[in-house]
Amino acid sequence: MTTPERRFVLSLGCPDRTGIVARIAGFLADWGGWIVEAGYHTDPDTGWFFTRQEVRADSVPFDLEELRTRFAAVAAELGDRTEWRVSDTAERRRVVILVSREGHCLHDLLGRIGSGELDVDLRAVIGNHPNLGPITEAHGIPFHHVPFPKDSEGKADAFAQVRELVDAHEPDAVVLARFMQVLPAELCEAWSGRALNIHHSFLPSFAGARPYHQAYERGVKLVGATCHYVTAELDAGPIVEQDVIRVDHTDSVADMVRKGRDIEKLVLARGLRSHLEGRVLMHGKRTVVF
Amino acid sequence: MTTPERRFVLSLGCPDRTGIVARIAGFLADWGGWIVEAGYHTDPDTGWFFTRQEVRADSVPFDLEELRTRFAAVAAELGDRTEWRVSDTAERRRVVILVSREGHCLHDLLGRIGSGELDVDLRAVIGNHPNLGPITEAHGIPFHHVPFPKDSEGKADAFAQVRELVDAHEPDAVVLARFMQVLPAELCEAWSGRALNIHHSFLPSFAGARPYHQAYERGVKLVGATCHYVTAELDAGPIVEQDVIRVDHTDSVADMVRKGRDIEKLVLARGLRSHLEGRVLMHGKRTVVF
Amino acid sequence: MTTPERRFVLSLGCPDRTGIVARIAGFLADWGGWIVEAGYHTDPDTGWFFTRQEVRADSVPFDLEELRTRFAAVAAELGDRTEWRVSDTAERRRVVILVSREGHCLHDLLGRIGSGELDVDLRAVIGNHPNLGPITEAHGIPFHHVPFPKDSEGKADAFAQVRELVDAHEPDAVVLARFMQVLPAELCEAWSGRALNIHHSFLPSFAGARPYHQAYERGVKLVGATCHYVTAELDAGPIVEQDVIRVDHTDSVADMVRKGRDIEKLVLARGLRSHLEGRVLMHGKRTVVF
Amino acid sequence: MTTPERRFVLSLGCPDRTGIVARIAGFLADWGGWIVEAGYHTDPDTGWFFTRQEVRADSVPFDLEELRTRFAAVAAELGDRTEWRVSDTAERRRVVILVSREGHCLHDLLGRIGSGELDVDLRAVIGNHPNLGPITEAHGIPFHHVPFPKDSEGKADAFAQVRELVDAHEPDAVVLARFMQVLPAELCEAWSGRALNIHHSFLPSFAGARPYHQAYERGVKLVGATCHYVTAELDAGPIVEQDVIRVDHTDSVADMVRKGRDIEKLVLARGLRSHLEGRVLMHGKRTVVF
Repeated sequence: MTTPERRFVLSLGCPDRTGIVARIAGFLADWGGWIVEAGYHTDPDTGWFFTRQEVRADSVPFDLEELRTRFAAVAAELGDRTEWRVSDTAERRRVVILVSREGHCLHDLLGRIGSGELDVDLRAVIGNHPNLGPITEAHGIPFHHVPFPKDSEGKADAFAQVRELVDAHEPDAVVLARFMQVLPAELCEAWSGRALNIHHSFLPSFAGARPYHQAYERGVKLVGATCHYVTAELDAGPIVEQDVIRVDHTDSVADMVRKGRDIEKLVLARGLRSHLEGRVLMHGKRTVVF
Repeated sequence: MTTPERRFVLSLGCPDRTGIVARIAGFLADWGGWIVEAGYHTDPDTGWFFTRQEVRADSVPFDLEELRTRFAAVAAELGDRTEWRVSDTAERRRVVILVSREGHCLHDLLGRIGSGELDVDLRAVIGNHPNLGPITEAHGIPFHHVPFPKDSEGKADAFAQVRELVDAHEPDAVVLARFMQVLPAELCEAWSGRALNIHHSFLPSFAGARPYHQAYERGVKLVGATCHYVTAELDAGPIVEQDVIRVDHTDSVADMVRKGRDIEKLVLARGLRSHLEGRVLMHGKRTVVF
Repeated sequence: MTTPERRFVLSLGCPDRTGIVARIAGFLADWGGWIVEAGYHTDPDTGWFFTRQEVRADSVPFDLEELRTRFAAVAAELGDRTEWRVSDTAERRRVVILVSREGHCLHDLLGRIGSGELDVDLRAVIGNHPNLGPITEAHGIPFHHVPFPKDSEGKADAFAQVRELVDAHEPDAVVLARFMQVLPAELCEAWSGRALNIHHSFLPSFAGARPYHQAYERGVKLVGATCHYVTAELDAGPIVEQDVIRVDHTDSVADMVRKGRDIEKLVLARGLRSHLEGRVLMHGKRTVVF
Repeated sequence: MTTPERRFVLSLGCPDRTGIVARIAGFLADWGGWIVEAGYHTDPDTGWFFTRQEVRADSVPFDLEELRTRFAAVAAELGDRTEWRVSDTAERRRVVILVSREGHCLHDLLGRIGSGELDVDLRAVIGNHPNLGPITEAHGIPFHHVPFPKDSEGKADAFAQVRELVDAHEPDAVVLARFMQVLPAELCEAWSGRALNIHHSFLPSFAGARPYHQAYERGVKLVGATCHYVTAELDAGPIVEQDVIRVDHTDSVADMVRKGRDIEKLVLARGLRSHLEGRVLMHGKRTVVF
């Protein structure tokens, strides 16, 4: 793997009007900014404008902080509803993964990180079962076992412990890799826009529990998976990525579970990559994924 | 197109037990039956056995009627819950298509029939709007315009007229090619197992009206279509075929509609072919598609 | 179908350097140009920059001619290797289709045009067999039968006749919808960048004749289709669109042909749409499809 | 994971004629054999018949050896070109994996084995680089590092060493998980029908070295992977499984490599599962995959 060149990544959403592209491009051009990737999108229904741009870090005479300061003035011109951020690809993204007993998504992410494909700073894996500890630690990653009792008080304590463990790392992404516990509203709020879940169905079909069983009962010819941001409404957060795989009458529920796992892994890995590269802009219940 | 050799197609479902395959295969072998295609399936959940077999018509010393008579004795041995049928590929399947204003599925089916790909006896097209009449008639197919008033009495009259027009042809398939009218329960019953609908979503997501609008609102990353048998419960009949296509944030509702149409056409054409070839065996809400 | 708003479509390719986005966006912004869709791409290997932008026609105080004149000055600043064009969505694209005996792609395109999905000015269909005349004329489109003799002189005469028929319409696209005749080099040259072919394989696999037979022999598990620009080198022109469909051991060559046709239709329709909307920019043997 | 019930798996290929299904089914029925899965296929081009059947082990009054002995008599009746085998799902399949430096396929297989999804007896991993040793051993699997010198004599020695290490385990599958060394003809022969390779292209496109670079140069819109049996002719063995993923102009070679890896992993895992379950029957250059 060669080291990719360092880039500043700028993303922005604001009410659409004439001249936004020119204003941002002009700002960058004035300082010699070399744009290596640029995405623009206008949503005609909401009248909202979105952009994401990657600029070669060595092409502008700033560091990240100064770029932020200077760009803030440009953003201010675009109205007070403008939302924007600027990041630096040289800062590795911090990630924490939450798991339960099933390991396929965790195995997949550890493999991607171990092979260098996904270049992130995986700070910790937290499991409500201990079984995935050894493989996590074999990859040199700390594993925390936080048991989840059935009673609501015990569960609240467990979530408090998880929150403390997670927040200590100030992660850019909290990945629910088949975590199987419903996050309380305050955690959804605290991790808003950073908590990614993988749901094992093609949402909105088969939300809730045992989606493969539901799919089997209904006799669908495809099963799927959905990576979405976690919100207080269960399985209803903005969707980042989805995919499906064909099944037929020869597939038992166990076969659907097995085939579906491959899609879960892919969809979660793609969704996480898009999130960490700053490619996902949320707007209401929908996402723009550049 | 070369004429495919004539075949007898046998399909059967019954409670599973030891020796069914041997009994049927033995019966055919005793008469020299040359099996050119055979599918077997056992559903462990319901304990039901399914099979479909194609036999070269010239390999057995019977005509269709005698084969039916003789096979009835075999089927009887398999228990009184056994369901079976035998058909002859030399008898062209009769089809009636119901349409509304949107023509993409009709255009597609007419093209398949006109090019010889789908070798069926299309008896009539019935539309509740007149606009698809000319293209239907250009293919040499009779078109009947049956207007559907908004009031329930007028609608009942219109359905009675449609039923008469359809039933006159004793069709093997009644295809609702984006018909957009909900069949009354008595028609669902009368055409049970013969009426195929194409729904413009990946069911069970977005049942009911305006599925592409629903899909857009939810921000899904794939849209799809579902071919299913019509039952009294709306959009809940046994699914024959489904497929999806990728969409993203650049797709407006109109784009989703356009992309979705291609999937609707494919899914309906595949589902109809499977139905007409006797490949679809229903069992409860699920289907076996050999 | 609602009429989409009128737009000017600008596309441009030139050697990459700092400030191109700002220059173009600045030009548009100076005249109040409202960008509704914008794509940018830089190819790091060739150092080439590509863009395509759609501007609301009523947002700029120009007609098409004046926009061209004024933009020419901007393009000139970007260097003498710059290639660009500006078009007007209000001018319907002119299309001529060439066919042989197989009608599935023609049926599909006629259906799309007839239903209003593909809003083009189809000027003529030219066939080297007469069988597709009636359906073409049923859609109100002129059909010309130009027989192709086997001898090279007769073939040259036939091509001369085809060329005359085509060029009379100054088409934006010449669609080889399974035309099955190899265009002579001078026609490839004359129609360069306008002639689209559909090849019935996933190129570069199975170039040349009888690709489905080749695919069957090789035992591949997917068959596909490729829409590409026609160049003098057979089946080697820049690829616009490709797709595949799964096959297995139960599929005979005839089954592969049937399944493949569905992919041919889709791939050709998508490729043609992209071409007509000015979304395809060629660079060497590769394409950028915005 | 519940333990699946024990089954005997019978597969057979022979020249087609009337009565084969009846003969085999009759044999099983006579002994009370409960068929839980059955596949039949006739290839009209070669006139060859194929079947694979799974029988509940507890339904027949035999052990594996006696079933083999008794079935041999049935097979003999079907002609001397008949090829068949009977296996027992209770005997775990032995696997050896060969790797080079790239670990994505190995990580994936280790994850599937570690999570119990792929229930095999992985005896050893052999690498011509040492880097994948630690993760292999973290899964409790022995790792052997066999360096491959550049000179042909050194290479021959290395292959001799690999062969010894592999053959000691009498594996049911030798998996070349991106091994990147061309097997000598005698090893192709020795491991015939047991050595599975994953090639990182949609064969027959882009055989040989650097397929993603070739794909990039050609400008294809999909990249793929192929799992095939290793034969003496490079990248030309019978194909077991293939799949593809969409790419576009924004994908550099490195992006294609990354996206392609996901397909390589899936295709290899699916191909290996089919092989180990006895679902793949070879016939010439083609495969039947039940």
